Amino acid sequence: MRAHSGVFHLLPLGLRVQNKLESLIDKHMSSIGASKVSLSHISTEELWKQTGRHSSNSEFLHINDRRESGFLLAPTHEEEITALVASMVHSYKDLPLRLYQTGRKYRDEKRPRQGLLRTKEFMMKDLYTFDSSHEAALDTYAEVRQAYTNLFDELKLPYLVADADSGNMGGKLSHEYHFVSPKGEDNVWSCDSCSYVANEELVEKATPETDLDKTDVPGEPVPPLSFQGISMDRETAITILIARPPDLPDTTISWDSISSFVNLHAVKRMYPDLDTSIDTASLRGLLSSAHKHKFLCSPSLPELARTAPEALDLIMEAYTHAQCERGQDTSSDLGESWRELVKEIDASVIRPGDACPRCETGKLDVQKAIEVGHTFHLGTRYSDPLSALIAVPHSTQKEAIHMGCHGIGVSRLIGSMASLLSDSAGLNWPRAVAPFEAIVVTSPQITEEDSVGVYDQLQGVDTVLDDRKGKELGWKLRDADLIGYPVIVVLGRAWKEGKVEVQCRRLGVKKVVERGEMRQEVKRLLEQL
Amino acid sequence: MRAHSGVFHLLPLGLRVQNKLESLIDKHMSSIGASKVSLSHISTEELWKQTGRHSSNSEFLHINDRRESGFLLAPTHEEEITALVASMVHSYKDLPLRLYQTGRKYRDEKRPRQGLLRTKEFMMKDLYTFDSSHEAALDTYAEVRQAYTNLFDELKLPYLVADADSGNMGGKLSHEYHFVSPKGEDNVWSCDSCSYVANEELVEKATPETDLDKTDVPGEPVPPLSFQGISMDRETAITILIARPPDLPDTTISWDSISSFVNLHAVKRMYPDLDTSIDTASLRGLLSSAHKHKFLCSPSLPELARTAPEALDLIMEAYTHAQCERGQDTSSDLGESWRELVKEIDASVIRPGDACPRCETGKLDVQKAIEVGHTFHLGTRYSDPLSALIAVPHSTQKEAIHMGCHGIGVSRLIGSMASLLSDSAGLNWPRAVAPFEAIVVTSPQITEEDSVGVYDQLQGVDTVLDDRKGKELGWKLRDADLIGYPVIVVLGRAWKEGKVEVQCRRLGVKKVVERGEMRQEVKRLLEQL
Repeated sequence: MRAHSGVFHLLPLGLRVQNKLESLIDKHMSSIGASKVSLSHISTEELWKQTGRHSSNSEFLHINDRRESGFLLAPTHEEEITALVASMVHSYKDLPLRLYQTGRKYRDEKRPRQGLLRTKEFMMKDLYTFDSSHEAALDTYAEVRQAYTNLFDELKLPYLVADADSGNMGGKLSHEYHFVSPKGEDNVWSCDSCSYVANEELVEKATPETDLDKTDVPGEPVPPLSFQGISMDRETAITILIARPPDLPDTTISWDSISSFVNLHAVKRMYPDLDTSIDTASLRGLLSSAHKHKFLCSPSLPELARTAPEALDLIMEAYTHAQCERGQDTSSDLGESWRELVKEIDASVIRPGDACPRCETGKLDVQKAIEVGHTFHLGTRYSDPLSALIAVPHSTQKEAIHMGCHGIGVSRLIGSMASLLSDSAGLNWPRAVAPFEAIVVTSPQITEEDSVGVYDQLQGVDTVLDDRKGKELGWKLRDADLIGYPVIVVLGRAWKEGKVEVQCRRLGVKKVVERGEMRQEVKRLLEQL
Repeated sequence: MRAHSGVFHLLPLGLRVQNKLESLIDKHMSSIGASKVSLSHISTEELWKQTGRHSSNSEFLHINDRRESGFLLAPTHEEEITALVASMVHSYKDLPLRLYQTGRKYRDEKRPRQGLLRTKEFMMKDLYTFDSSHEAALDTYAEVRQAYTNLFDELKLPYLVADADSGNMGGKLSHEYHFVSPKGEDNVWSCDSCSYVANEELVEKATPETDLDKTDVPGEPVPPLSFQGISMDRETAITILIARPPDLPDTTISWDSISSFVNLHAVKRMYPDLDTSIDTASLRGLLSSAHKHKFLCSPSLPELARTAPEALDLIMEAYTHAQCERGQDTSSDLGESWRELVKEIDASVIRPGDACPRCETGKLDVQKAIEVGHTFHLGTRYSDPLSALIAVPHSTQKEAIHMGCHGIGVSRLIGSMASLLSDSAGLNWPRAVAPFEAIVVTSPQITEEDSVGVYDQLQGVDTVLDDRKGKELGWKLRDADLIGYPVIVVLGRAWKEGKVEVQCRRLGVKKVVERGEMRQEVKRLLEQL
């Protein structure tokens, strides 16, 4: 139930779905020995400054209090839990430690949209793991991945696990869990032949594409495309030079549309400090005050220069032009070869049909997907700045704890399950999270004794009875479909012959069975959902 | 675990206590047919302006977001749930409706203190009831009170139920649930003879005390004490005149210490708009711009004037002086009798030993207490301004829903139980909310088979086993005492004779029993806790 933009209330049945999912998560967290905690929703700027994650550019929701304490609503809890563990754990003997919670998180979402998928307040399960060595942390990571697989398997909905870049979380080892959905905002690439799956940030292709092939050689050489970006700290201007696609008219292309021409994720891998989220307007003012510069160049450009020497002049010209634009004296650089000044990078955009990097024959394809979970190996990204240190064997030096963090987007998972399984009749919940596994719906002629009798017979199945007075059977059935109970047991016309109808919309089943067979039939259907 | 000032994290055992309490609450809420929801923590100023509860003087924590949406962290949910119900309920046929949640609330607490008792972020159970008539709402109120009694009874700790003023919640019928504790910040008055219990706001005494008795009559008349306060809207100055206690030196007394001389709650009942929380410094500037004025006068003053006529002049003088101080021309008023201008009020302070207003012989006494729950009948206080209207039988006019709201301070209840039952050895939880009902503690010599065997024997009791290696029995026992498990089962020296020790610190029990009698003994102790 939407209360305000990006803010939702949960009504009783929605809350039951959320509680079921939370219990399912509890079961799998407990399987790896994780203990449940409940951290405050309030954090302080101070801690986030220590880890370098506080910047004015962020999506924090700040709190105004009477003392200007610098409180904010926590979007995630790495800082808080690392500080907490640092205060309590001092030796390798206290590890491994695995702590998790299921609670609300807050983000100043620019454009709240798509119901529960993107909101300002959302439920997350976040697990934090603490180990005394890198090797132990990798073992923990493998255990968590197995628990995630077991958990998502129970939902019986197809999902993808993608190799992932961990963004500003730090660390290198990271996986994302996705539901494929046209409503998704992430792109997940997979091979049509092998098991390769990767997200937009990490996807690679087999052979670097030569932009050269696309360039009209040996015809008239065209000037390369040049983009200018800036580093996060605003000190370095970055010029990216790529061969101009032959079909592109000779007009200026703004930074905003760079991702159509340049694989920015590849650029980020080589130069992580590039600010890819800046817009053209802000960029203009900032470039003039940047006092360092870097050049990145597509590998096909030197090739182009070799096969079509005229192109070299044009590239040099673009390079010089870029330097002059920033008001730099280029005379001292001109004598050196441009090849020594620039780094080569394959920044070509990956397209559906490109060759898989893992297997010989596969082609890559891309699907829209909703990210519902992730696992990150963090290493000492947070334990270092927050001094979460432990005594280790055979050393007098204390060492930083090796950490991991592992999330599941609870409200987003609920929203995506709702959207994946719904149809024109209503919602349709997976058995594991349905508010009730089954509903008994009665026509007005059925006595209370009979309806309660049938309800009692379903012991062991999480069942609800709809024997509301004054409502017709048809109305109740439409209501049950709308809510999306996995199985509906109807006490209607067949009841006088001692029979009930068992319905399952998702499996397309409508079947009249003897009362004595009902429980077996309901359980048989539930096992498939 | 304190994270920041007024902000706490819950560790695994604390979270278990909170979850047990939440389940206990769920049981009693379900007994009156209440459904559980989960409202957002984010509300908007707009809604609070509609009910008149938004003012700059408040304890809201406001949120800064990119659109300046006027978001705030909800301190309570009357506004949100009334708006929600208004959007979904349109007929008396949909009522009664009882909705509750257990969740976090936020308040910009001036001085966070005493651990979980007064914090910026706290857990509340809040139940909201919706009825189609005043009578039905009163029946609901009685049902809720019964459910509260049942719930608090299960904690097996003494508590007081006080008649209470509902403050700015509106409505008249209201009760508070208190634990008596020296750490409490509330004063609860009770009769030593009958069942009369009332809070500071509502307490009354049998016969109005005559301040006259205390005044030195017929000796030299002393000038009355005069206090000047101001209304919430800053438009009206209020002068309160009382007889000066004979032992009081003739010095100026500031507004800040008025409550030692004047029963401000009695004044508030006559003139609810009086701002009692203002300080002397702020008052000074505001009084000069107030353009209306009211006078309240102790009933003993006219009496004083009759028996000691000289006093009348002094009273008139004080009154005129008060008017002149505000720069008013008093000449037009002077001709009228001061008796026509002032309202009489018994504003004498209630003191321990004053006569009970309910019975003939009882004397009042006061105790420090912690408020852990309250029930309010709200009437149409929120449904009117937020247009929560329903169709009613035999009328074409829609009518406002009759509401109630009923809170339990979950984190405060946990904090006060912890402080009430703790001693030098550690905490001591009531059975109903203990993280585990019992713990089995083993000495290092006990085999795993034996300790697990004893643990298994306690099936049906919520038990935890402490068989940690490398820790001595004494260390484990101190740890168990610190955490406060109600019952401890010790596998120590007596084990080789097939005996265990059963301990209960709260009841002062330490008893060696045969293994076969252990379960019975543990259950017998638990029934008393």
